[in-house]
Amino acid sequence: MKFFEAIAEAAIKNRSMVCVGLDPDMSKLPECVRNSDKPFFNFNKAIIDATKDYVCCYKPQAAYYAGENRDDELKMTIDYIHENAPGIPVILDVKRGDIGSTATQYAREAFDRYGADAVTVNPYMGLDAVKPFLDYADKGVIILCRTSNPHSGDLQNLVSDGKALYEHVADLVRDQWNYNGNAALVVGATYPEELAKLRQACPELPFLVPGVGAQGGSVAEVIKNGAVEGWGGLMINSSRGIIFAGKDENFAQAAGEAARKLRDEINSCR
Amino acid sequence: MKFFEAIAEAAIKNRSMVCVGLDPDMSKLPECVRNSDKPFFNFNKAIIDATKDYVCCYKPQAAYYAGENRDDELKMTIDYIHENAPGIPVILDVKRGDIGSTATQYAREAFDRYGADAVTVNPYMGLDAVKPFLDYADKGVIILCRTSNPHSGDLQNLVSDGKALYEHVADLVRDQWNYNGNAALVVGATYPEELAKLRQACPELPFLVPGVGAQGGSVAEVIKNGAVEGWGGLMINSSRGIIFAGKDENFAQAAGEAARKLRDEINSCR
Repeated sequence: MKFFEAIAEAAIKNRSMVCVGLDPDMSKLPECVRNSDKPFFNFNKAIIDATKDYVCCYKPQAAYYAGENRDDELKMTIDYIHENAPGIPVILDVKRGDIGSTATQYAREAFDRYGADAVTVNPYMGLDAVKPFLDYADKGVIILCRTSNPHSGDLQNLVSDGKALYEHVADLVRDQWNYNGNAALVVGATYPEELAKLRQACPELPFLVPGVGAQGGSVAEVIKNGAVEGWGGLMINSSRGIIFAGKDENFAQAAGEAARKLRDEINSCR
Repeated sequence: MKFFEAIAEAAIKNRSMVCVGLDPDMSKLPECVRNSDKPFFNFNKAIIDATKDYVCCYKPQAAYYAGENRDDELKMTIDYIHENAPGIPVILDVKRGDIGSTATQYAREAFDRYGADAVTVNPYMGLDAVKPFLDYADKGVIILCRTSNPHSGDLQNLVSDGKALYEHVADLVRDQWNYNGNAALVVGATYPEELAKLRQACPELPFLVPGVGAQGGSVAEVIKNGAVEGWGGLMINSSRGIIFAGKDENFAQAAGEAARKLRDEINSCR
């Protein structure tokens, strides 16, 4: 099944546009898992079991695993989702971007080594840096457009021919890079006006929306400016707000409640 | 020692601006190492031994190791350079770029886990995506500016306020991001006019220059348009042209000769 068909099915089944970011920061893990043999995997397993009925996808951020030399636990996490939350796709957040021969290796890493269903990629180097990912027609390729971070405007807001850089990215993706129908955009919740503008320009593209919760984006504005008919067209990511909702042995239950609450808040705004 | 002091020392000692890209593509390895226990490490070891007197730095491309699940051989390669080619710094080519908390993890990956002396990073997300790297004052941070690949102009050539996007990146790096004196730019040899323009705008910044050899860039043009006084200010990368110069058991000797030849060609143009 193609990635965005799988997302639509999961979103409809769970009535949810919630994407849970699996970013296990060692210093924030509850003690009961921090001292275990596979702390990241054990933490994620409990979070997945507690949240899987309230989400449309999961998004592990590769940097957290790479920084701690725990790539094996990233692989175990993705395998666990596929086995124990069947039908819930996994976006591997890697934001890669490199010349074609190198991008081919990164695509192998994400799709073949880790078995991810989608990846995030960086558009700065142009089409040939993204094509090796796009050529996996059944996988999703989610391209950075307007990111949620404070300095995202340093380059993304530069205006050329009457359009900001991030709008040029959106045009390229919509008109040229989506030749397999498997592309989407990253659009931060922290910039609601830009989100509205991008939705108007790209009514058909799904958006991955980070920045609600800890980063301060408003769910109501995201829905008003970005949601579309059908399954909704948005994968609204929350990482810290869900996975670190509780601090003690009840962390998984707290995460489940936070995911359900975010799902219901989103649905109440539609 | 700071990264660019180390580069200058190595460049002067070896009279070389050559950077050897350690990108071991499994399908291209000579049979005698391909079937060994640690093919990437054994290949690199022989290449390093044969080239270390002709280079100013090495640049392993992380994707090749990640795509084959051989991260351990990347680590062994970097350790081997530090032990057996002392004074020759290592640039880990990763082109990362992510929000601050995530970039911090990637910086730990590059500098603490792998022990690299410098990294490549992507500027698309702005200052806070690059800062966690720049804050390692003794490490080098080499920022994508005008990349060597065919579609690099898709975004990099967009003109805003009379300057192309890649020129805006150069201005930002020169004026704001180089607060620790440890920043440099990636400028492809395949775009010699842009290289000249960037050298004029940034006379003090070192450039990492990919794209000679297999990608078609001219050494003479690179030197004419980019070299400066002193150690020269350029790290001219060749990967395939050096490491796959020979195909059989004599591959290391062939790589050594190719590295020496490239060094001499560069020096003859100065």
